Amino acid sequence: MNEVIAGIDIGGTKIAIAFENLNGEKIAVRRLPTKVEIGAYAVIETVSQAIEEMLEDNQVKLVSIGIGCPSPLDIEKGLVMSPSNLQDWDNFPIVKLFGDRFRVPVLLDNDANTAALGEYVYGAGRGYQNIVYITVSTGIGGGIIINGEIFHGVSAGAGELGHTIVQPDGIRCNCGSVGCLETICAGIHIARRARERLAGGEPSIMNEMAANFDDVTAETVVEAVRRKDKLAIEIWDETCRVLAIGIANIITLLAPEAVVIGGGIAAAGDLLFAPLRRLLPEFVSMIPAEKINILPAELGHESGVCGALVLAKKAYSKTY
Amino acid sequence: MNEVIAGIDIGGTKIAIAFENLNGEKIAVRRLPTKVEIGAYAVIETVSQAIEEMLEDNQVKLVSIGIGCPSPLDIEKGLVMSPSNLQDWDNFPIVKLFGDRFRVPVLLDNDANTAALGEYVYGAGRGYQNIVYITVSTGIGGGIIINGEIFHGVSAGAGELGHTIVQPDGIRCNCGSVGCLETICAGIHIARRARERLAGGEPSIMNEMAANFDDVTAETVVEAVRRKDKLAIEIWDETCRVLAIGIANIITLLAPEAVVIGGGIAAAGDLLFAPLRRLLPEFVSMIPAEKINILPAELGHESGVCGALVLAKKAYSKTY
Repeated sequence: MNEVIAGIDIGGTKIAIAFENLNGEKIAVRRLPTKVEIGAYAVIETVSQAIEEMLEDNQVKLVSIGIGCPSPLDIEKGLVMSPSNLQDWDNFPIVKLFGDRFRVPVLLDNDANTAALGEYVYGAGRGYQNIVYITVSTGIGGGIIINGEIFHGVSAGAGELGHTIVQPDGIRCNCGSVGCLETICAGIHIARRARERLAGGEPSIMNEMAANFDDVTAETVVEAVRRKDKLAIEIWDETCRVLAIGIANIITLLAPEAVVIGGGIAAAGDLLFAPLRRLLPEFVSMIPAEKINILPAELGHESGVCGALVLAKKAYSKTY
Repeated sequence: MNEVIAGIDIGGTKIAIAFENLNGEKIAVRRLPTKVEIGAYAVIETVSQAIEEMLEDNQVKLVSIGIGCPSPLDIEKGLVMSPSNLQDWDNFPIVKLFGDRFRVPVLLDNDANTAALGEYVYGAGRGYQNIVYITVSTGIGGGIIINGEIFHGVSAGAGELGHTIVQPDGIRCNCGSVGCLETICAGIHIARRARERLAGGEPSIMNEMAANFDDVTAETVVEAVRRKDKLAIEIWDETCRVLAIGIANIITLLAPEAVVIGGGIAAAGDLLFAPLRRLLPEFVSMIPAEKINILPAELGHESGVCGALVLAKKAYSKTY
């Protein structure tokens, strides 16, 4: 029977499972809703059954598993530690559960790191030695790849790009610190800033685009920018400027060969990448402008599950 | 004849030369003034003659050289590229000159990176895997050591901690960017901020400590803080707060096991380290406070020449 490795990308709303054979060919992909309400053990049971069906359907034998999951995690102990979108997954032994069920080695990492690894091996980061991956979505996360490996640092805490401070006199962040990159540029804060301005009575087509202020999202802002709305453009310009400063600090510290940007907000495409590419040489003086590589992620929602496959490959090669 | 490696630390005012035998024992150290006015070639001739005397005095044979030098450099081509304190050293082939003269392999790196390496191997960074070294002096520089190696990044541009942006609405930096860490916390800017406040007529014992405003230095501010001067304390508090934000961003990105701080301003000791240690857990939320290690450099002015010796060791082991 042919052997396969499995990548599992666990999100707050969706789970993706992918199989790859030992020639590196993807042979099966399945997507499930997470159904947080049924509880952590039941979710893992559902995923395990799906994997068993996929093994049966494809007549293959599983040799290892890689998992990407929202943080915080205890990677060494293989535990999920109550991430905000999986709150009852507390000290949850995800690695042991899959390991016991399938009797294969299992590696776990956080979703931003696995997405970084996915883009590095299969996506926009191919061919580079060191890259930084940033996901700009509801929140802002990141992963640092150095010499082909996820760079973890102490307590696997490296790469928390969303919590670098870019506005020391800014608002308090959920994390407890002040003026984090997230507090301006994350999707929920783009929306918050728009709502506050609209509530202040400023004219904007966003007033017509959403039934009420609470329905305004980052996507509303992006759409209003496309329609040349003055208020939306102001909010977007500030978003791009602050994001450029956050990315500039990463480049000034690490001088990566490429910064790969993914996540829902990156779907704005040129509306985001054109201003970033224009502003960055202004904020990064120690590296020649032509060496600053800002690239859109190439794998979309697949970054995470692709990175989970890379972890699975690592789990396999470490053990056998 | 016993074999030795040589480390050379070139600064704008002083040059240090150290010999180490192959058992890792330092056997000779010499210090020279740089005498920039005699020109780059004459300076290197003076250093070469000093090395020849040291070889003769100790009856040893030279096997490799490591050099630390102010940036910008072209490390791969072995060139000095007009650093601000060695301006006529333009496209200056320092590696070739020493290599031709002594017929040994020569490695070059910038002074902040060699100081980082020195602290990592011989100083406060001993026993860790990943550290960040920061020098807070006239300017602010830094070096990143990952898995025992200097992390260079693209164009050897990594580690320019002084040019991360911490005050986006701040003043323009010499580097061309805005609100860099240097523009608040570097020695010349601590002095500038004090002078501006004094020129504005604020009462302070600094008025008596210096003959006129232009004589106020960062050291004046530190001394006035020790004497409980209100204005000096305000300036120092802001310095520590902004430096803590800059260091917090490094920790949030890289989660190093230790941040080692050296340079003239770090000589303020507890006056600097106590507030940094108090403030950092406030600005770093993603890593447990007890994992945040802020350490004073241990080698003082020797960090650079010690790191140059490590480079020399590397040059030797690569070649033979």
